[in-house]
Formats: sequence, C-alpha cells, structure tokens
Amino acid sequence: MGGLQAELEALLDEVRRGEVDAADALERLAGLPYRDLGFARVDLHRELRQGAPEAVLAEGKTPEQVAAIAKALDEGGAGSVLVTRADATVRAAVREVLPGAQDDARARAVWAARSVPETAGLAVMISAGTSDGPVLHEARIRAELLGTEVVVHEDVGVAGIHRLASVLPDLTRADCVVVVAGMDGALASVVGGLAACPVIGVPTSVGYGASFGGVTALLGMLTSCASNVTVVNIDNGFGAAYVATLINRI
Amino acid sequence: MGGLQAELEALLDEVRRGEVDAADALERLAGLPYRDLGFARVDLHRELRQGAPEAVLAEGKTPEQVAAIAKALDEGGAGSVLVTRADATVRAAVREVLPGAQDDARARAVWAARSVPETAGLAVMISAGTSDGPVLHEARIRAELLGTEVVVHEDVGVAGIHRLASVLPDLTRADCVVVVAGMDGALASVVGGLAACPVIGVPTSVGYGASFGGVTALLGMLTSCASNVTVVNIDNGFGAAYVATLINRI
Amino acid sequence: MGGLQAELEALLDEVRRGEVDAADALERLAGLPYRDLGFARVDLHRELRQGAPEAVLAEGKTPEQVAAIAKALDEGGAGSVLVTRADATVRAAVREVLPGAQDDARARAVWAARSVPETAGLAVMISAGTSDGPVLHEARIRAELLGTEVVVHEDVGVAGIHRLASVLPDLTRADCVVVVAGMDGALASVVGGLAACPVIGVPTSVGYGASFGGVTALLGMLTSCASNVTVVNIDNGFGAAYVATLINRI
Amino acid sequence: MGGLQAELEALLDEVRRGEVDAADALERLAGLPYRDLGFARVDLHRELRQGAPEAVLAEGKTPEQVAAIAKALDEGGAGSVLVTRADATVRAAVREVLPGAQDDARARAVWAARSVPETAGLAVMISAGTSDGPVLHEARIRAELLGTEVVVHEDVGVAGIHRLASVLPDLTRADCVVVVAGMDGALASVVGGLAACPVIGVPTSVGYGASFGGVTALLGMLTSCASNVTVVNIDNGFGAAYVATLINRI
Amino acid sequence: MGGLQAELEALLDEVRRGEVDAADALERLAGLPYRDLGFARVDLHRELRQGAPEAVLAEGKTPEQVAAIAKALDEGGAGSVLVTRADATVRAAVREVLPGAQDDARARAVWAARSVPETAGLAVMISAGTSDGPVLHEARIRAELLGTEVVVHEDVGVAGIHRLASVLPDLTRADCVVVVAGMDGALASVVGGLAACPVIGVPTSVGYGASFGGVTALLGMLTSCASNVTVVNIDNGFGAAYVATLINRI
Amino acid sequence: MGGLQAELEALLDEVRRGEVDAADALERLAGLPYRDLGFARVDLHRELRQGAPEAVLAEGKTPEQVAAIAKALDEGGAGSVLVTRADATVRAAVREVLPGAQDDARARAVWAARSVPETAGLAVMISAGTSDGPVLHEARIRAELLGTEVVVHEDVGVAGIHRLASVLPDLTRADCVVVVAGMDGALASVVGGLAACPVIGVPTSVGYGASFGGVTALLGMLTSCASNVTVVNIDNGFGAAYVATLINRI
Amino acid sequence: MGGLQAELEALLDEVRRGEVDAADALERLAGLPYRDLGFARVDLHRELRQGAPEAVLAEGKTPEQVAAIAKALDEGGAGSVLVTRADATVRAAVREVLPGAQDDARARAVWAARSVPETAGLAVMISAGTSDGPVLHEARIRAELLGTEVVVHEDVGVAGIHRLASVLPDLTRADCVVVVAGMDGALASVVGGLAACPVIGVPTSVGYGASFGGVTALLGMLTSCASNVTVVNIDNGFGAAYVATLINRI
Amino acid sequence: MGGLQAELEALLDEVRRGEVDAADALERLAGLPYRDLGFARVDLHRELRQGAPEAVLAEGKTPEQVAAIAKALDEGGAGSVLVTRADATVRAAVREVLPGAQDDARARAVWAARSVPETAGLAVMISAGTSDGPVLHEARIRAELLGTEVVVHEDVGVAGIHRLASVLPDLTRADCVVVVAGMDGALASVVGGLAACPVIGVPTSVGYGASFGGVTALLGMLTSCASNVTVVNIDNGFGAAYVATLINRI
Repeated sequence: MGGLQAELEALLDEVRRGEVDAADALERLAGLPYRDLGFARVDLHRELRQGAPEAVLAEGKTPEQVAAIAKALDEGGAGSVLVTRADATVRAAVREVLPGAQDDARARAVWAARSVPETAGLAVMISAGTSDGPVLHEARIRAELLGTEVVVHEDVGVAGIHRLASVLPDLTRADCVVVVAGMDGALASVVGGLAACPVIGVPTSVGYGASFGGVTALLGMLTSCASNVTVVNIDNGFGAAYVATLINRI
Repeated sequence: MGGLQAELEALLDEVRRGEVDAADALERLAGLPYRDLGFARVDLHRELRQGAPEAVLAEGKTPEQVAAIAKALDEGGAGSVLVTRADATVRAAVREVLPGAQDDARARAVWAARSVPETAGLAVMISAGTSDGPVLHEARIRAELLGTEVVVHEDVGVAGIHRLASVLPDLTRADCVVVVAGMDGALASVVGGLAACPVIGVPTSVGYGASFGGVTALLGMLTSCASNVTVVNIDNGFGAAYVATLINRI
Repeated sequence: MGGLQAELEALLDEVRRGEVDAADALERLAGLPYRDLGFARVDLHRELRQGAPEAVLAEGKTPEQVAAIAKALDEGGAGSVLVTRADATVRAAVREVLPGAQDDARARAVWAARSVPETAGLAVMISAGTSDGPVLHEARIRAELLGTEVVVHEDVGVAGIHRLASVLPDLTRADCVVVVAGMDGALASVVGGLAACPVIGVPTSVGYGASFGGVTALLGMLTSCASNVTVVNIDNGFGAAYVATLINRI
Repeated sequence: MGGLQAELEALLDEVRRGEVDAADALERLAGLPYRDLGFARVDLHRELRQGAPEAVLAEGKTPEQVAAIAKALDEGGAGSVLVTRADATVRAAVREVLPGAQDDARARAVWAARSVPETAGLAVMISAGTSDGPVLHEARIRAELLGTEVVVHEDVGVAGIHRLASVLPDLTRADCVVVVAGMDGALASVVGGLAACPVIGVPTSVGYGASFGGVTALLGMLTSCASNVTVVNIDNGFGAAYVATLINRI
Repeated sequence: MGGLQAELEALLDEVRRGEVDAADALERLAGLPYRDLGFARVDLHRELRQGAPEAVLAEGKTPEQVAAIAKALDEGGAGSVLVTRADATVRAAVREVLPGAQDDARARAVWAARSVPETAGLAVMISAGTSDGPVLHEARIRAELLGTEVVVHEDVGVAGIHRLASVLPDLTRADCVVVVAGMDGALASVVGGLAACPVIGVPTSVGYGASFGGVTALLGMLTSCASNVTVVNIDNGFGAAYVATLINRI
Repeated sequence: MGGLQAELEALLDEVRRGEVDAADALERLAGLPYRDLGFARVDLHRELRQGAPEAVLAEGKTPEQVAAIAKALDEGGAGSVLVTRADATVRAAVREVLPGAQDDARARAVWAARSVPETAGLAVMISAGTSDGPVLHEARIRAELLGTEVVVHEDVGVAGIHRLASVLPDLTRADCVVVVAGMDGALASVVGGLAACPVIGVPTSVGYGASFGGVTALLGMLTSCASNVTVVNIDNGFGAAYVATLINRI
Repeated sequence: MGGLQAELEALLDEVRRGEVDAADALERLAGLPYRDLGFARVDLHRELRQGAPEAVLAEGKTPEQVAAIAKALDEGGAGSVLVTRADATVRAAVREVLPGAQDDARARAVWAARSVPETAGLAVMISAGTSDGPVLHEARIRAELLGTEVVVHEDVGVAGIHRLASVLPDLTRADCVVVVAGMDGALASVVGGLAACPVIGVPTSVGYGASFGGVTALLGMLTSCASNVTVVNIDNGFGAAYVATLINRI
Repeated sequence: MGGLQAELEALLDEVRRGEVDAADALERLAGLPYRDLGFARVDLHRELRQGAPEAVLAEGKTPEQVAAIAKALDEGGAGSVLVTRADATVRAAVREVLPGAQDDARARAVWAARSVPETAGLAVMISAGTSDGPVLHEARIRAELLGTEVVVHEDVGVAGIHRLASVLPDLTRADCVVVVAGMDGALASVVGGLAACPVIGVPTSVGYGASFGGVTALLGMLTSCASNVTVVNIDNGFGAAYVATLINRI
C-alpha cells in the first residue's frame, strides 16, 4: 500500500506548490497520524497504512485507559475494535463505552465490529491440547474480524498422531496454518511436514516443569526441521492471526 | 497440493480394486517416498509434496555423506540441489559429484540448478550490518533457486535510521520482507512498522557480549510490537527464504 | 501390542475386499480412535493401544472440561479414570460425574477404578524429603491403578545416608525404582549406584533459591554418574509411574 | 565535590593539631556520616557528598521501617524525601510522619520537598507504551525533585515510527534523554541514533512471553548499535533520573 | 541381584563366626571392590553388582590414564572393556594395551570383548538425522556388548513423517526403543505415541542457534506428552543403551 | 566425632561376639538412627553425629507435619528445636506442641531450647540493607542456639563505604564473618578484603529486575576476588550460621 | 545539534521554493548521508550529526571489508578513523590503506587522526585487574581521539580496598568515571559510592566459572546500589568512552 | 590480625605527634601497601594483613606480565610465590625469573617457596573422578604452601558409594574437607552428611551436556541438604584451599 511514502510525497507536493510551509509540514507530519490521549498515542491510520486497525493489549493498562483507547479507535472510524488479554473488569469497562460489543471470557477478548473486510483465503488453526484454547480462540477472533475464514481443530496432540488424520483434508486446502501448542511444541514440526503452505507456530505457556512457561515450545518450534514454520511470541495468537491474514490477502 | 492425501487415496483405491494387497501396500508406503542411503533417507518426493526440493545442511555431516546425498537428490531429479553451511572441503566434494555446480564462499553454499520455477512475487531482503552478509546471501540464493525475485539492501542499521529512506520504495512494493539482523535485532520492529506485508525476522549470531550468539536478536524480534513479524531460528536465512517463497506463490 | 499397525492392516483388508471404499476408510481412520468433545479429543483407544487408559491433567482446564472428559472416558469403558493436579473444585466436579470416585487431597488426585490389571512386578518409590510427598503419592496411585505393586519409603535424604540402610532390602528385590527428590536431586545418583534395575528420577519443584523450581534436581539427575538412571519432567510422578508399569509388564 | 577526602583531610588536621586523639578520630569517622536506627543506617551526608539526598526504596521493608527512615531523613535536613515502590499502606504511613507529603498512586511514590535545587539542563523522557507509565513517572518525579526540567512523551513506540516525528524537536534540544521501554526495547536504539546527547535506557518489565520480565528489553538496549546509549536496571527509572541530573549539572 | 547386601551379610557372618575381626572387616569393605590406581579407583565388582562392567569415558583423562584403566578392567576379568568419547590418540593407546581391540572412528569408541552375555530382548534405536549417527552408534555398540539385540533406523525425521512408516513394524515388536534426536527432539514424542513399550530419549547436541547444544531437544523430550518417554543426558547414548539392556533383562 | 564409624565398629564387635546375628544387625542399622513418622524420618542422632540437632524447614510441609516433627525432636531429647521459614499458622502449631517456645515473626522462626552449648568463638554478621533483615536474624538465632556469640551490623551497604568504618573493629576480632546481601552482593568482596578469617556469603533474594531473586548476588559472591569467601544458597542464613558454628568449635 | 531536523527543514524549504521537486527530494534524502559500498553504508555524516565519526568494529568483517570502510571514512573527511577488535591481519590491512595509522596490539586497535577536537573535561578510567587492560585501553584511545583528557588507574580491585586510596583525588576531580571490571564487577558499586559524577560501568569477559563471560559483572553493575552507575555491553569500552565524551562536552 | 586498623591507628598517632602532616599521611596511605607495576598493583602486604601471600592467576595475562608480578612478589619477600592456571609458556617464563621454582603440568601451577608456615590442622581433599585431578592438585599445592597438612583421595564417586568406605576414617579426623566434583556434584552432599566439620565444595567444569561446564555441580552443591557445605566458584580449588587453611589456623 505504501501509505507512508504516498503521504510523504503528497505532503512534499503541497509544500512545493507553496500550499504549506516547512513549519506547518513538520507539524502535520507530527500531528496527523495518531490521536494523543496523553498516556497513549492511538494510531488511527494503521488501518490505512497496514490494512488492519490497531488492537488493544489490555495487560498493564488500567480499565479506564483501555476504555478510553477503545473509544478513540471507535470514534476514529476503525473497522473493528478488539481488546485482548482483558479480564472481566476491563471487558465491562469496554462494553460500557462500546455498547454493542461482544465478548468471550475464555479468550479474554471483547470487540465491536463496524465493518469486516470480505473473506479472503482460509486459515486452519490447530491446537495441541484443550488448555491451549484461550490462545487459539484469541487468534480465531482476530482473524475473523480481519476477514479471514477460519477452521478450528482442537486437542490434536502429537502423542496420538492418529488424531491428525481428520485434520489432513483441511491442511491440504489451507492457505496458511496456525499451530497453537505448549509443552514440547512438537505439533508444529509434524504439521509443517504435512502442509505445503506457510505454518505459523504459536508456542503457549501451557505446561509445567521443564516447559518453562512456553520457552520449551518456543525453542522447539524455532528449531523445527520443517522449514515452512515461522514462530511468534509465546501466547501471541493475536500476531499469528494477523500474519495469517496478510498472507491470505496477497 | 495435498500430495500425501492424494497418494494415500490412490493407494487405497488400488488396494480396493485388488491391484495391491495389504502387505504390498504397507511396503510401498514405507519404501516409496525416499531413497535410503543407510545413514540418510533422502526425501525425493518433497518437491512434489511441498513444492521445493530438499536441501542439505552440511554441518555435522562428513564431506562424503554430503556428496552422496547431493548426488542422490540430483539422480532423483531434483529441480535444484543446494548445500548450505558448507566449508571449502565440503564444497569441493559436492562440485566433484555435481560438475556444473556453482558456489559462494562467503555464503558457504554450493548449488546446481537443473530448472528453476518461474518467478513469482518479490522478496526484499535487508540486513542490519555488513557482518550479517553470509546469512543474507544464503537466503537470497535459496529464494532465487525457488523462483523468487529478490532485492537486497545491506547495512541498513536502525541507529542511523535515515539509511532506511532509500529502502522505503522497495518496502512498499514487496510481497514479503526478510530482515536479517544481529545485536538487538531492532531493525525487524522498525521495518515491521513500515511494511504492510509479512516480515520474516532472521536473528543472526553477529555481535558480542550480551548479544549471546543471537539470542538477544531472537528475543527482540519475538517481542516486536510490529505484529506482522514472525521469526525463524538464529542464522536460518534458509528457512526464511523458503517461507518467503511459499508466501509469494499463494 | 501393535494396535495401530493391526488396525491399519485390518482396514486395508476390508478395503481390498471391497467392504469399504477409500472415502469411508479415511473417515473411519479419522473418526474412530477418539471421541470429539469439541474442546477435547478423548483417546478411548489408548488402553487398547498402549495398555493404559488416558489420564487427565486438570491444570489449565476448567472444572467443567475436566468433568466432561472424565465422564467420556468412563462411558468409553476405561478400566480406570484418573485426574491429576486437581484442586478441590475440580475434584468435586469429577466426583459429581463419577459418583464412586475416591480422592486424595495431598496428591491432588481423584479417580475411579472399574478394573485394575493383575499385579505384575514391584516398583519401589523413594522420596528425599517430606515435602516431596504429593508427587510421590501421585506416582503411587497411578502405578497401583495400572496393576503395579508399590512399596513406598519417604524422607530418605542423602545427607543422612544411614537412613538408606532400611531401604536396601527393597532396592535389591525391585524391578524398577522411582526416586522423587527436589533440591540437588542427589538421591537418584546414590540409589542408582545401589540398585541393579532401572531407576527413574523424578525431580521435584521442592526447594528454594538455587534449586530454581526443580531445575537443579533435574540437571543433577541427568548428569548422574549412575548410568541406570533416566529422568522425567519436574514433578511428573505420573509419567514415572507409567514407565515403571511398562517395565514391569515386559 | 570530594566530601569524603575533604572530611578526611580536616580530621587529620585536627588530629595533627592535637585537637582529637586517634581513638576519638576513629569514633568520629565511624559515627558521623549516618544515623543508626538499628535496622537501617540512614545516610544523612549523601546530599553533601553526592549532591542528592538518599531516597527510600520501600520494597522489602515494613511500613514502620519506611516511615522511620523517611522521618530520619526529614529530621536530618534532607532537601527532599522521596519514597519509591510504595504501596498504599506505605504511602499512608509516610504521609503520617511527613504531613505535607504528596503522593502519586500510579508512580507508587510519596515525597516531601523542603527545597529543590535551581533548574539546570533539560531531560527528555520518552516511553514506548502506555504500560511503561509508572516507571516513566517515577523517573520524572525524582528528576524534578533534584532540579531538572523534564519534558515527557508517552507511547512513542518504534512500530509506528512516524509517532517519533513530534518528539524530534525536543530530542535536539535535550541535554540528556531517558528512554523507558519494555518488550524489545528497540526505542532506545532508534532514539540513540537521532539524539546527539547521552541516552539512558530504562528497560521495563512490561510485556509477556519472551520479554521475560524485562530481560529482553535490557539485552536489546545493551546491544544497541547506537553507542550513546547506557543502561540501568529493569524498571529503575529512579536511577536513570539521578544520572540525568548529574549529567545536567556538569 | 543384591550384590552389596549379600556381600555385607556374608561379611557379617564371617565376623560373627570369628573368622574376621572388626578392623579386618572394615579394611576388606574398603579395599575389595575396586583397584586403586592412585588417580582412579577401578570398579571391578560392578559387573557382579549391576550386571555390566564399568566402561571408561575418555573425555578429561589423559591417554595414559585411559589405557591404564582399560588394562586394569581387562586384568580384573571384565566381560568386555569399552572406552567412549575417545579421539584417535586415545583409541591408539587403548589398542596398544588391549591388542585385540576393535574401534569405530565415527562413534569415537574402542572396545574388546572377552564374553558377551546371551541375547535378551530387542532394542530399536532410531535417529532423527544423519548427524546424530555418532551418538546412535555409541549406543548400539554398548548395547550389543551387553547382549542386547539392536535394530537401527537412521534419519527418520518428524518433518517427513511418512519416513516413519517403514519403522512401524519394528516399533511394535520392540521391548524398548531408544530415540536419538537433536534440534527440537520431536521424534521422541511421535515415537512415544506409536510404541507401547518404554521409550528412552537421547537428546543430541546436533543443531544450531536456538538448539543450544542439545538443550532444546532435552527440554522437548522432557515435556513430551507421550508418557512412556524418559530421558538421559545430552549425547548420552551410552546410558540409554545400558537402561535398554536392564529393561530387556527383566 | 566419627559417630557412624564408631557405631559400625561397635556393631561389628557385638556381631563377632555372637551377641547379635546378621539379620538383627541389619535391622538395627536400619532402625536405630531416626524415628520414622511415615512422612518423615526424624534424625535423632544428628546432634551426636554432627554436633547440632536437626532443624525443621517448614516450607512445603503442612502445619501438622511440622508440629509432629518438632515434637519428635523434642521427645528425642534434642538440645534445641528450631523451625524456620514458618508462617504464623505453622508457628502457632509448633507453640501448641512446644508450650515454652519463643518465636520471631520477622525471622519467620519458632524455637525451644532445652540446653545451649557453651559459647565458643565470635561470629560477626553483617547485612547490606534493611530488607536483608529476615535472613540475617534467622542466621543469628540458629547460631545462638548452637552456642556461638553473635554481633550484628545491619544496613552496611557498599555504596556508602564509610559506613563500614564502625564495623572494622569487630571484623578484626571475629573468628568468622557472615555477610548477608542481595542485589549485587558486593559487600562480600569488600568485607572479604578487610577480614583475615573465613567469610561466608549469604546471597539474598532482595532486589528487583536484574537481581533475579538473588542469582546476581550469588554469582557475584562466587566470583569475588577475595579468596576467603565461600557461599551458601540464596537466603540460606541457616546454613551459614551452622558452618560459622563449626568453624568456631575447631 | 539537531542535524537531521535542520537538514529536513532545509530540504523542505528548497522544495517549497521549487528548487527541488518531490522525487529529487526523496532521492537526496536517501542518497546523501552515507556512501554505499554494497556490503556497507558508511555513515559520513555522523561526525556532523552526533559529533563523533563512525568507528569500525572489525569483528565479523573480512580484512578487505574493514580496509575499504576505513578508506571510505578517510576519504569522506573523518576527523579520525578508528578500527577496534582488529587482529594483526586486519590491522595490517588498515595500515596499508591509511599509511600513517598507529596501532596497539593489546587494545587490538588501529587508528589515524587528522584532527582531534580540543580537550574538554576529564574522564578517569579504572580497571579492577590487569586482565581488563585491553578493554580499558580501547576506551582510552577512543576517548582521546574524541578530545577527552583521560587518567588511567589499572588493577584497583575491591578485595584490596586500600588500593583505592591513591585513586580518590582523581575521583573527586573527574567529570565522568569509567569502571572496567570482570568477575563480580563490584568495583563499580564502590567507585559509585565514592564519586559524585556519572560512573559508566564496563563489565568485561575476564574471569572463569560463574563469571559466565562477563554476565556476572554485567548483572552486578546493573544492580549496584550506587545510583550514579549506568552500564554498557560486556567489553564495550568503546561505547563507554563515547558517552564519557558526550558528558564532558555538555 | 587487624593489620589495616592497626596501621591506621599508628599513622594517626604519628600525625597527632606532628611527625607526618596530612598530605604525607594520605600519600603514605596510598603508596605503601602495594607496588605499582603500571599494569598491576602487587599487594605486598597481604601476607601481613591476611596471613597468606597474594598468588597469581595467569589466565588473561601475558607471560611477561605474570613473570613480572611473580618477581615483584619474590622481591617483596613473599613466603611463597604461586602461579596458577599457567600454561607451559607461562610456567617457563616464571621459572626464568624464579630459578628454583617447581612446577606441575597437570595442575597447571608453578611455585617457589622461601618459607612455609608450620603445619596446622588436617584438610582432607576428595575428588569424584579422575578428570577432577587438575583442580584437586591445584588445591593441594596451595594448601601445602600455606602450611596445611593435606590427605588426598581421588575418584570416589557417589555412584559406587562403597568406595567411600576407605575414606571414612580420614573424614572423621579432618578439620576441614574439600570436595572436588563435576557432573551432578552429589559427592558434596554425601560427604557433608558423613563429616562433622566444615565441607567446602568445589564444583568442576568436568562433564558434558547438561553439566553445563560446572553449573550443575555448582547448583547441586549450593542446594545440598547437608548444611555444613559451603561452595566456591567452579574450578576454584585455589580458593577452597585458602579457606581450608584459614579454618585450620583458628
């Protein structure tokens, strides 16, 4: 899309035509692309620039801050507003400022959608175990809000490899696969070897002892012998969904 | 492509028609898709199954083993044969069995190409520093052998952010960006914020002290705030190139 | 037992005889071996395939999910149903769906046994300290439900090596020894040197400071000079008990 | 300032003139520079010696201990008394002994200022995200109490690099810049490349997964290619503010 | 076997019958079970006590020390003498003192066998990649010297899961499986799910970047969802072979 | 003292004189030196064997278990009974079974002393900060119960090195110094350079960020250039006090 | 200095006056500030922008690359050209292209100075041990080339704290202190407590065992209680010297 | 001994009597206790102050530097001069300046003794394996030069616990025990439980895989349940010997 460059060229043209002077240009450059709430600079242009509205990670912010940012995005015309890692208090605070918002307690998400892009491509999302559910569904919600068709298969662990059989047909028609797994994260390697498209591994913090809060799954996915696997941060279903969307849009 | 499933269905059909019995079917399933050299099972079907021939990581193998595998791939009809992480001895051993092979000392690679797929898509590959060159060029060679057009920009560090300006036009027309960086790996975050397509971060082992052989760059890329960034293993330019190719083919 | 292969051969035979066609075969392959609860695929065939019913790790699942899985196992005819890492709420939820279930608060386990295999072999289970009790007893319960005779010795730390004397006679008649220890995990090395059978080390998260939640015990057991010691994950009494059972059945 | 040496010379002079004997000299040396509360030795001379009064880190101390130390500093004539990492209970306990004290719940600080030095120099303080706010404001309060003018810019993340534009003018007039960032900490590298003065990086524990409680940001800042960046401990806004003050006073 | 206890009881009986006094008994206890070479105490009784002669890890010892220990074991009547992690110099030194010894450069082992126990049980040993060969063959040699039948399958990586098909028949008839794998170590999980006997995982130091010299494979195997998997130290094929032997003897 | 050897010789003598037979001897060896509570083997002989009664680490045990062990030690005639890491509930449970017991909430200890050995030697105990108090006082209580004279200096941090002056006279007359410090643990190095006796470093978990729960202090003390410094586990004031006592008794 | 902003304003002015059009402006923005050697973009403007010419880290580059970059800097008019981490081969290659260059084998540096700024401020540089010399002298050379007066004190370890006495007078007149120390890095804390100016800690990789190649020194300096200490990467004397220079110039 | 304080008092007395003025006093304080070689400050007073001459760690120093320091110590009248971690070149360089010096290639030490203190106390030094020999003998040499009687037992591993029997009599008469062990370091725990005196654990870098260059042994010793164990740095036999000497002198 090249938003930044286009905008820069446009601005330079206006300057050249004498329509704006240097000081104003600098100010516009500084002032336009976000709304400054003091504690947050809400990126209202991201949807234009990168094809997806900014979403809000609630962790580390007060409910008031989250609600204010959500409202700013809504007022800024975002196609959808999504808040993740949101506990009950935060979800309630967001629903107050976005009356029509939906939420999902297990995925710890709350969202409101004004317009969802037309569907493009198919993302298959697979989890290794039931406990990976919250991350899986955060990914699903994000992708669906961005116009990606999602098929979900849960609890398809590698230790019972016959359970993968029912997933095979969907693997072969997917444009992108998201694998959500904790413990050893070995599912990413196995799926990587079966699929012919990009596979995005999402290590989760599910596990105990030597799983070290997701580090073992992360390392396992990074060292996978299946070279179609790339990896995102632990529990970052959100990011995986976004990349899956970008891939599907190409 | 769904090679595995198709093959399985075909085999089941033959079995059903009585053309093969169960014992033969099992044997075919076990025997067909690779060539067993004793110390290695060369995957001759990967090109059919996943659209790219198997490549050979030379590290940890003897020159004789590498040459034998390369020869088996060549005899198996691979579109191209690529050996990576190959020191001078290994490269010489490969050139002996593949007389027309080319090599690149800095990228530590040797390869022979019988047929390269038609070009699809554009991958922009950027490195943060001169020392990241070997990884960057391993990625470039791999991608070009798989039919991806590649544009390279070297030494575009984040600490002199104005150097990014000349890269911007290419970023905006890329279908996929590969960022190769050691030390803090911050280039991935900055490029991620500027590009509207998937960005694949390749942390490198370049650096000293607290860069811990690439771990810091790896962690930095994984925790990037730019959510279009996914990450591969340290120094794994090879894998990044493969995923870039898959994305471009969609 | 070879369940998977046998099943596969049988299915291929039916296909060959025209009794099932390829599509049905695939469906059966995909649909048979587990029961899909949506959030979980309950492995009802594991008892046939591997000689022990699937057990349920409660951590990371909601009480409702755990209870539903336990019920599915029970309805699927499992010889016994065991739920581990279960807090009071989960144990209550399970007892509601499995009215006859027993539980053990310290071992954080709840279970119901329809049929326990005949006893085979003797497993001696030893802990280094009182605080290792919960892991030790989780192991004991699992092994007993699978038909293994278990003798328990608690608080036999290495720093008072004379306490090992009373354990010696049992060590010499054991078919397998399970050593449960936190802190430095040194008990595994000492017992390994005294026993002539396989010793399975279970590092525990008991300890403080440089015990790093069980990591030091884990590393100590892995580097033991006694070469009859193998190791499982931190606090994984469950897995150790299962392997002890497999060894005893040979 | 050389307080220690000066004091030592003076004492030696008095000894030489016979005004104090060796035993008394030793006692004075030992007794003078702090007030011994039993559980704490309050450094009443630090303001003389290093130009800034001792401040109190509340973490790990009881509210009673904190209040007693704050009172001792106040009675010792400190220009200002600042308590950091103070929860509501501690802040209340301090306000009881320092009736005019102000506090700031988000920055978890409480303070009373008898006299603030004249303003010298400008410190620009920038945070990468809203969640870095508490650390940023702890730094701001500390610096202002020591007489440094502070300009604050919050939520200027690197993934939306255009947000930096409005900060550029302040960067160019700063005497010292403090960058507060969690996750990958990449903001320090980018700001380091834009500013021509010392930049102090404060990694924060903000983030999840592979951010490891601030370790990734710490490592990223330490390996920054911008060589004007130095680093303090994770979440140590306090220390950064103190060094910024020292730099501004030169 | 209970060697230690039996010996102790025998000694106590002699003492009781007045055949030895306390001082002599202590001396015998101290002096008997090993031969003191000054720098080494060679355990000549281990074969009696634990059913397998002591073997020699050459790493960290001088060639002269290794040769002297090998000779002492041979003179002490060991059924076989095995030296592992032996470079060419060490292997030559051993062959000099044990003229009939065999060696294997790739497995870095040298050995002489006077008598090998009768074969008991079947161990299947599988490696994920060609580079895992040295560890795999060290394991094979050790097991064969202890009387275990071994079947070897090399280069059966998880990313090409169809390669596992030819291994399935051997998996189902094995008494114990040894899985040798570097990188993500995922092969242990997959094999664990397919086999119904104990599986011993041997992580190897094969790999690069985030494989951290075998740590990732180690952690992956420890956190495997297949609960029949236990694990030994990185590259410790030797220990795995010993435990496989013990299991087969039960 | 050689308790074990003496006991063994005595037992062997009785056996030789026919006063006990082998079976009884084994039983006595096994049964004598501790009292078996089922979940704990209370070491009643440690005071004879090593000059100090066993103490009880409450962490990881239930209040009932702790009280039962304390009672067993008391009934076994221990000179003193000390319970450490004891929260209010545990302290109350102990006071119930040992009516005359004293306790100290900050040091989280409860104890009863029947007889304290005569004082031998002087241990100087120094902490770097007020927050190290609980560990320091646990050490002091333990040492005093074992008959060591203790002098305490709190909050003598290295950053205000003049505060060390008042400690110097005590350092020069100490038989052993215990240094309790968190953060960088640098106090151990400085005190090590000033004292001419053994210095025992106790790293504490006091600190934040890069202090990693005491790891940095631990590593700092281990790498101290003062070669009279040895180190114990993080927060292990208890162990340091015991070694100080042993040194003083020599 | 604000070079970037000034340049941007100037460019915008030219554009506004019609002297350059948008396309040319973009090109100039991209092309001006560095010289593109293909494998490196040499930053010729850094001296203008940040007051110090770019220096060259030789590690990871070929001698030819280093020499080419050094030559480009020299031809670009750099006040001085400094190459660090340069082995003998690299130093020779540089001396060939910069005939008048000086070098220092121990500091592994080679440099040529056309003009050195006038001296401003005093930096005192202190090392803990003789082995820290290479890092210390790299720092000294860099600072002197940038016009900073440097006083050096070597081998002033904390374990012999009396050795600090001779350094005290210099500490009190310093504008900035650089502390170079390996092992526990405790010297930074002690110097931090004695100096009233900013102290920059440079942890070195000197040490063994638990010093972990400089990590312990790094962590110790980061957690120093002296709050005037900031830290740079392990062995990064170069960066410390640069910041010391910036501080002295204010 | 209190050297520092005594010296300080003496100096103050001289000052009081007018025999020295303040400036001279400061100079003497700074100049006396060491000899400044430029790159090293040789501590000639340590023998007076702490009862043992400074020794020289050769690692990280050039042979010329080591020889110069050794010569300075010799000229300064040191009772003995000991150089450790010295390769053949360094040992030759030292023997050149100290013609009568002895050396030991395996312990990598070279030394010359003018006078050794009278023997006091007995240190028992035990190693777990033959490969720990170099560290063990470095400790022995250091202790003997300081006048400590040493008894050595090598290769007394915990996995063959019967080998400990011959060591028991020496354990019971020792004043201090030094345990040198790599791998899991478990020997320290077992010896700690058997000895009634202080035990100093020296973890060694001997081992492979999960022994992590001595880290596992270090952690194991730190978390030992035997509370008479203190620990020094990995491979630091030198420090352990020094503390053993200090204990024996009390």
